This record gives sequence, structure tokens and C-alpha cells, in this order.
Amino acid sequence: MKSQNPPQQSGNNLDPWYSNYAARTAGLAASEVRALFAVASRPEVVSLAGGMPAVSALPQELIIESMNRVMRDQGSVALQYGSGQGVPKLREQILDVMAMEGIKASADDVVVTTGSQHALELVSKLFLDPGDVVLAEGPSYVTAVVIFRSFQAQTHHVAMDEHGMIPESLRENIARLRAEGKTIKFLYTIPSFQNPAGVTLSWERRLEILQIAKDNGILVLEDNPYGLLHFDAPPPPALRSIEQEGVIYLGTFSKTLAPGFRVGWALAPHAIREKLILANEAAVLSPSSFNQLIISEYLDTIDWRAQVDRFRGVYKERKVAMIGALNDYLPSLQWTDPKGGFYVWLTLPPYLDSKQMLPRAVKELVAYTPGTAFYADGNGHSNIRLSFCYPTPEAIRTGIRRLQTVISGETDLVETFSKTGPLGTVRDRNFSAPPPNLN
Amino acid sequence: MKSQNPPQQSGNNLDPWYSNYAARTAGLAASEVRALFAVASRPEVVSLAGGMPAVSALPQELIIESMNRVMRDQGSVALQYGSGQGVPKLREQILDVMAMEGIKASADDVVVTTGSQHALELVSKLFLDPGDVVLAEGPSYVTAVVIFRSFQAQTHHVAMDEHGMIPESLRENIARLRAEGKTIKFLYTIPSFQNPAGVTLSWERRLEILQIAKDNGILVLEDNPYGLLHFDAPPPPALRSIEQEGVIYLGTFSKTLAPGFRVGWALAPHAIREKLILANEAAVLSPSSFNQLIISEYLDTIDWRAQVDRFRGVYKERKVAMIGALNDYLPSLQWTDPKGGFYVWLTLPPYLDSKQMLPRAVKELVAYTPGTAFYADGNGHSNIRLSFCYPTPEAIRTGIRRLQTVISGETDLVETFSKTGPLGTVRDRNFSAPPPNLN
Repeated sequence: MKSQNPPQQSGNNLDPWYSNYAARTAGLAASEVRALFAVASRPEVVSLAGGMPAVSALPQELIIESMNRVMRDQGSVALQYGSGQGVPKLREQILDVMAMEGIKASADDVVVTTGSQHALELVSKLFLDPGDVVLAEGPSYVTAVVIFRSFQAQTHHVAMDEHGMIPESLRENIARLRAEGKTIKFLYTIPSFQNPAGVTLSWERRLEILQIAKDNGILVLEDNPYGLLHFDAPPPPALRSIEQEGVIYLGTFSKTLAPGFRVGWALAPHAIREKLILANEAAVLSPSSFNQLIISEYLDTIDWRAQVDRFRGVYKERKVAMIGALNDYLPSLQWTDPKGGFYVWLTLPPYLDSKQMLPRAVKELVAYTPGTAFYADGNGHSNIRLSFCYPTPEAIRTGIRRLQTVISGETDLVETFSKTGPLGTVRDRNFSAPPPNLN
Repeated sequence: MKSQNPPQQSGNNLDPWYSNYAARTAGLAASEVRALFAVASRPEVVSLAGGMPAVSALPQELIIESMNRVMRDQGSVALQYGSGQGVPKLREQILDVMAMEGIKASADDVVVTTGSQHALELVSKLFLDPGDVVLAEGPSYVTAVVIFRSFQAQTHHVAMDEHGMIPESLRENIARLRAEGKTIKFLYTIPSFQNPAGVTLSWERRLEILQIAKDNGILVLEDNPYGLLHFDAPPPPALRSIEQEGVIYLGTFSKTLAPGFRVGWALAPHAIREKLILANEAAVLSPSSFNQLIISEYLDTIDWRAQVDRFRGVYKERKVAMIGALNDYLPSLQWTDPKGGFYVWLTLPPYLDSKQMLPRAVKELVAYTPGTAFYADGNGHSNIRLSFCYPTPEAIRTGIRRLQTVISGETDLVETFSKTGPLGTVRDRNFSAPPPNLN
């Protein structure tokens, strides 16, 4: 399995263990924009890049009370190792959370994990052999693509439009990949308020996508961190509420409570759940008892639904600020208008490259995530993910104004050069061209 | 890679996803004694089986104070995502902890993980290709062997005696495995107060083992959860204090503070550390900020060295109780006498099988871990791991008395049958035969 010439990111000649790494580390590379983000974390930069929840909207005193009660009443349990499946009471409470999205389940089939990120890692470890294929929306969650690659699987993207994943593209992908002899292990999807595109899979398409998966014997991995964070009407019911045996559902407290606890979960069909527990035990022995009990106490004693409503209000206000600023400063561009969640997906004119433009944006004190981060296939150069979850409405407005300065400057540059020749002819200057292409 | 006939534990015909699992899940099986341990957790059973620290010896009020200060002073950081490498201040404090075992390092080379268990998983993910070999003491930590198997690597055991791993056995293993064309990826070792054998690698052997590893270009993975929990004199300095470039060191707060936080760390050579951070980010995004800050505050404001001394006192008292009870109730057997840590390794007469005997022990209200759990090769039938970390001295004495009842009963049974014939000739009845053979 081991390559004699591992790729550059797998090590270098200054590393005495260079030739010892597993083949899977070939896919393990630091993000190209990582160094820039270190700069972007300076306070004078408006970051529209990260996905950090607005934890300042949490009732801190009430969390402190929960913590103290847990330590006084159940300290010896909180400080001890727990079970690989998670605290039974919390698993029951997770059923109440999922019931808000139409899911009926047994606490037996819930496995608590170290954030839903770790559930994604564990499911990947259980299913992915080298060369396997995962289908995912294009664009998709950046760290999901990283995990799939870390198990030497390929991510193939299914096209999206403003109603979410396009069923016909899913059918085409399955047919093409199978004709090529590829093994599709699962379909990874974020149906509600997708990261990064901000779009939501319609009810009709939910039924159709599930039917396609069933007809083709393809497991669906539904990642739903944002479903409860809708601005007005809730999204259509979760895929798992429609189909049980063919769906693994991933949930988290990172967005409805706080990511600092690292508590998420998987709801899985019985046989898969059994393996997930074993994989979880091998990886971490047990998720933190301390954090699980604090969250359990919080859910028990605080009106957590009212807190989720409060988060909704905060994020809606920020989304409105972002869309307003985009209308004011970049009216000729295209963007998605999310009905919940954290993200807007912006499409640049085709002659601009979002990754190449990032250093200039950071120089103008605004940061974003280039679209290329969300594709396994090099797409996304014309796109930008804008996060409105963390900065205040005022900061968002400032950030978009700075972004306009950057884009104008870049556009002027292209115009100048296109007159003098070195960049060749500009292919397309029509800002208000076709609807946002999410591919 | 996928087998057409996956082994039984990989699924069954009631599982519609039976044929979809990755090849590596073939090694993923529930422990055979798992169901028994569920029974053994009833309060009337004295469990000498688990490795749960005595968290009741912790100053709970002081932990509550640390928690409250963290939430009031740094709440918005504690509740938020952190870095994949861990909180910088905590990484500095971890240097102080490691300095107690002679280790000099830079906080840049420390990666905080979700317990040291997760560091072990991440290192394995970085290094192990299918078919690779890990060398480990025989017996070795059960969940380490499980992890190596989960990455389709084989564990080969190096013989031990009362001074720890035997250098000659290490040499022989390397020569034999290389002659067979095997790739040895690392040597996994618990040099101090080994789990499960309770023995400690001598100073001379530390030097010799490191030299053998260096001469053969084999990375050493030093797992040191118990090093600070010495009863009298400290163990010899950590392997990492002697050799830097060839050792990855794993530490944890699970035994010196509490496992409920799930905070451990890896100290790794520069190039490996860089990959560990990326693997950690893929797996969990970041370890819990909340838990890291609480531990940091605890280390900052509480005399944690005095608390480690308190733990030492608790465990020494329990070890003395266990050795005393063994002398009183089972004087003809052989056992190790640990100078620290959590475990005693007991050798049964060869005609008894520790795994087969376990159900009868649980019926007599005492539980232990059969030696077979700690070998990848089916050895250990004559051995038992006895944990003295969790039960009180009185409970330990009761447990050993019950164990004596079980062993006597089994011995009588064997004697009866050996007279009448069905079990054949008993091979060896000499209870006080050779010194404990740890293989």
C-alpha cells in the first residue's frame, strides 16, 4: 500500500519518519488558506469566514447553575469514565430535540459523540475502503470532504440549485459511477440550510432523493446541525423522519447550545449503531461524562426551546443585515438567501478568482472562505462562502462594504489589463447573468 | 479490499448494510466479557476488573470553583470552538507536568486530545496501513490492541519479566518479522506500572530498548498514564526524556485529575505533530475548550502536585490491601507487586482458565479481567488482571476472599474430574512453580 514517492504533504526529507506514514496520510494537507486565517483572526479584521456560533447569546449564569448542580449532585459520575454509547438520560433527551424535526426513534439507537464531527469520522471509518466513493452536494461541508479523503475515498459532487440537491444529477452520478465500476458507500447531505450554500432541500425532493437512494441501495448520511435554526417557517421534516433503515442522522449541541462542550450524536439503524459504539470506544473510550451531564441538566432545567428561539432571532437579524448590505454594496452579484442556518453563498463574476482575491481581502480587513474549499474537484473559484453567524450586524455591513472595495479594485484591474492585453479577453462581464450556479 | 464473506462480527443477514462495511470492521468485535461486565456493575459485586480512578479523592469544591471562574472570566472562549492543537496556556502547563518525569519539550510540540486514547487512535491512523505490524509488550493495553486491529495492523508481543520488556525478545521479534517481510511501524509500550502487568521497565533496559529501536529505525510510542502514581520512589525517567526524535509520548489528565473531562495529549516530533493536528481537526475539529480551560484553571490555582500525592496515598493503601489479601487467601499463586499504578497481574495454576472461570466468579460476586483480553494472539488463559484503583481496601479484601472461593472450587472440580478421567491428566498442580511468566 505504501507509496515509494509519497506526495509532498505526506512528509519531507527533514522528517525522519517520512517513509513510515500510512498511505491515507497522502490526503492529509493543511488548508491553503490556513495561514491567512491566522492573520484574519486579528480583531480589526471582520471575519465572514468561520462558522462560530454566537455563544454570547447564551444565558451564561444558567449554564453555571447547571454545572454546579451536576458537580454537587452527580460529581463522582461526571468526573468518571462513562459508557461508549453515552449517558442514557441524555440520549432520551436527544429524542425530544429530534422530535422537533419529526423524528421518532429509540434512545437505544442514539450514540453520543465528541461533536457530530466525530460521528462523521466514525461512520467514515466504518464504511470507507480505499477507492470507495461518497456522493455529496457540490459544494459540501469542507471537513466532511477532508474526512472522506483521509480514508482514501473520493467525493463526487451532486449538483444543487435553490431547492437543494437535484435528483436528476444524483441519478446521473450513480449511473456513471457504477458504469465506471466504482463502489458508492453513502450519500452525504446537509438537507437544511446547507453548509456552505445556504439552500434547503424541498419536501418533494426529499421524497425523491430518498427513493433514489433506496432504489439503488445507497445509505444516506443526513447531517443536520442547523435544522432548528430557521428564521421563519421550519424546514421540511428531516430525511430520517421519512426513512429509518436507510438513514444515519447526525445531530449536535454545537449550534443550539455551544460547541465548546463537543457533544453531538448519531442516530443509526440498529446494526450500524452497534458498530458505532465499538468504534467510539476504540477512539475515545467514552465521550465526556462531565459535558454530557451538564447538557442533560441544562435541557432538564432551562427552557432550551426558548433559547433556540433566541438564537434564531440573533441569526435572522444578522442574515437580514448581510442580505441588505449585499443589496446595497454588491447589487450586481448573485447570492443565495438562506431561510435559516449560518451561510450565504456568493457568486463572483467569472473573471475573478475567490482564492486569489483572499489576500487582498484580508489586506482590506475582511475575510471569507473561498468556494474551492468546499469542492473535492477544484471547482468553486467563482464562489465565496459568507458567514453571518458570528459578527454583529454592524460588523457584517462593514465587512460587505470592504468586500465591495476589494471586488471593485479587482474588477478595475481586470478591465485595465483586458484593455492592454496581458490577461486576454474578459470572458463575461455581465454581473446579472444566470441564477447562482452552485456547481 | 472488501471480503465477499466478511467474518461474523462484521454484520449479519438481518443487517441490510451487511456487505457495505469497510474491510477494517472485520476486526471490530464486542468483547466477549462485555455482557458479564454489565452484570458485574451491580453494587453487590466487587469489581476488580475496571480501571476507574478514585475520583472521590478529588477536592470537588475546588473543581467547582475552577469551573465557575472559567465561566465568569472566559465563558465566551470556553463555550466556543478552539484550535485543533489545544489551548496554548494548557499546552504550556502540560510541560510542567511532563517535567516531573524528566521531559524537556516545547509547547509547540504538544497536541491536546480527547483523552490519550484519542491520541493513540490518531497516531494509529497516521501510521498504520493494512498488514503493518505494531510491537507491544505481552500482555498489553486491551484498547490499544483493539485500535491497531481496527486499522488492520497486527500486534506482535514482546516478552516481559519483572523488569519490563525483555530487550532480547524485542531483537528477536524485529529480526523474525523482518525476515518474514513484515513492516514494523512502531513499538507501543507502557514503561511504567504497565497495564495490565504492573511492572516497570528498568533504567538499563530503557536505554537498551531505545538503542534497539534507533538501530532499527523503529518509532517508539510511549504511553504513560500512570508514571506520576508511584507509591515510593518514582519510576526511571520517561523514554521521551532520553530520546526526542524517535519517541511519541502520550499523557493524560484522566489519572492525575479525572477521566470525565477526556483531556489527554501527545508530545510528538515536529513533523509528526503537524500531521497529528490535522488528523485531530478532521476527527473532532477541536478538543473541548470548556474542559481544557477548566483543567488549566485547576492547574493554575490548586496545588495539583499535592493532589497527585493524595492519589498516590490512596492507591498505595489499596495496593497494600490487595497484596496482603493475596498473601492471606491465595498464598500459593504468583503475582506481580507493582510500585505504582492500578494493576496486579495474577498467574493461575495452568489447569485453570481465567476466561472460563469468570462467570463463576461473577456468581460469587467478584469480577476481574481475564488475561486473554490483553493479548492479540490468544495467550493469557492462565492470567488475571486485578485492579485495585477503584474499590476500597475492605472491598478489595472481600473480593480476593471471594476469588479464593472460586479458585478453590474450580481446583476441587479439576481434582475430582482428574480422578475420574474426563478432563484428562492435570498437567501441573504446583502452585508455587516458576516466577510469574508474563507471556
